[in-house]
Amino acid sequence: MSARPGTVRPGGRTARVRTAVLRAAGDILAEHGFAHLDLADVARRAGVGKTTVYRRWGSVTGLVTDLLAELAHDAAPHRETGSLPGDLRAYALLVQREAADARQGALLRAVVAAAPCDGRTAAALRRFFEVRVEEWVPCVEQGVARGELPAGTDAAAVVRAVSAPLHQELLTTGVAPAPHAAECAARAAYAAAVAGAYAGAAPVTGR
Amino acid sequence: MSARPGTVRPGGRTARVRTAVLRAAGDILAEHGFAHLDLADVARRAGVGKTTVYRRWGSVTGLVTDLLAELAHDAAPHRETGSLPGDLRAYALLVQREAADARQGALLRAVVAAAPCDGRTAAALRRFFEVRVEEWVPCVEQGVARGELPAGTDAAAVVRAVSAPLHQELLTTGVAPAPHAAECAARAAYAAAVAGAYAGAAPVTGR
Repeated sequence: MSARPGTVRPGGRTARVRTAVLRAAGDILAEHGFAHLDLADVARRAGVGKTTVYRRWGSVTGLVTDLLAELAHDAAPHRETGSLPGDLRAYALLVQREAADARQGALLRAVVAAAPCDGRTAAALRRFFEVRVEEWVPCVEQGVARGELPAGTDAAAVVRAVSAPLHQELLTTGVAPAPHAAECAARAAYAAAVAGAYAGAAPVTGR
Repeated sequence: MSARPGTVRPGGRTARVRTAVLRAAGDILAEHGFAHLDLADVARRAGVGKTTVYRRWGSVTGLVTDLLAELAHDAAPHRETGSLPGDLRAYALLVQREAADARQGALLRAVVAAAPCDGRTAAALRRFFEVRVEEWVPCVEQGVARGELPAGTDAAAVVRAVSAPLHQELLTTGVAPAPHAAECAARAAYAAAVAGAYAGAAPVTGR
């Protein structure tokens, strides 16, 4: 909670420690999975004092939460391709690449695994998806404005529909979806939205 | 692996022990979550000897795997409503009810959580979804035969699309989807299938 300059200066020692620790934690997650993530081990790999790691992250779930924050921050900002099918395809391929990435896919599975047992991780996961959906909602809203989709379309539902089959596949099979699954997910979400499946029938307050 | 009669006779002592143990395990999962599931505690609640539970299930993941097998077995068989939108809606509402059920929703989250760390649980989870998809594929195939959907539609992809937004919501927010989300999921999968989103563009070998 302190606002010491070292905690925010990007090139400072604190930032370098964070980078080294998150890299080590991501390596261990990708190589051995969540069950083998241990703070002392992470500190050793990162070449950082154990006390520093315990003081700063506190627990494995604290570390995983910070990894997720880094993933959200690093993800390429969305590109607007000028057409809604193009935008939805770009989003589907972003989700697919994350799921297929050894470090990011393992991180997502670890976070989903830890969430039921840990309120902090659950909140970080919810926030990660909320931010993601908020980033892509304007593409759908522009599609509505251009007349590609019916008025009253629930833009967030369309964005969530794009990632849903890809996340379901990763989480239930443990195998990352292939790029053609992403193409299919984007095509399906667009077709359903054009047909009005996300307009009108949901409660007015929506979610 | 033994085929002693007691292991298969439905009303026998072995079956009664299993029922009591699975009920106790389901109660603990629903009340306290996966982190608090402990074989000795389950045995005590079920009124069964600890040794019996350790010998038969071996570990918490063994117990969870057996709970999942019971869930697959108990789920109401699919009803054919005579129209594909009706069938997809029935499936979506089955998935939604499971997610919203205190015991079944907690079980699904626990299994998804344990799968990355445990090969046996991962295999049970994959099998659970495969069986589920196989059960509902004929509804979609009949829809193709009736001319409701384009020829070449990937029936399994349509079934998976129905559950995807519901599972994504449960697993990323920890909150069970509402019935209107199930209605929307079924409507969207149907509209996308009618538009041909699941036909043709996927590789011929499928997956």
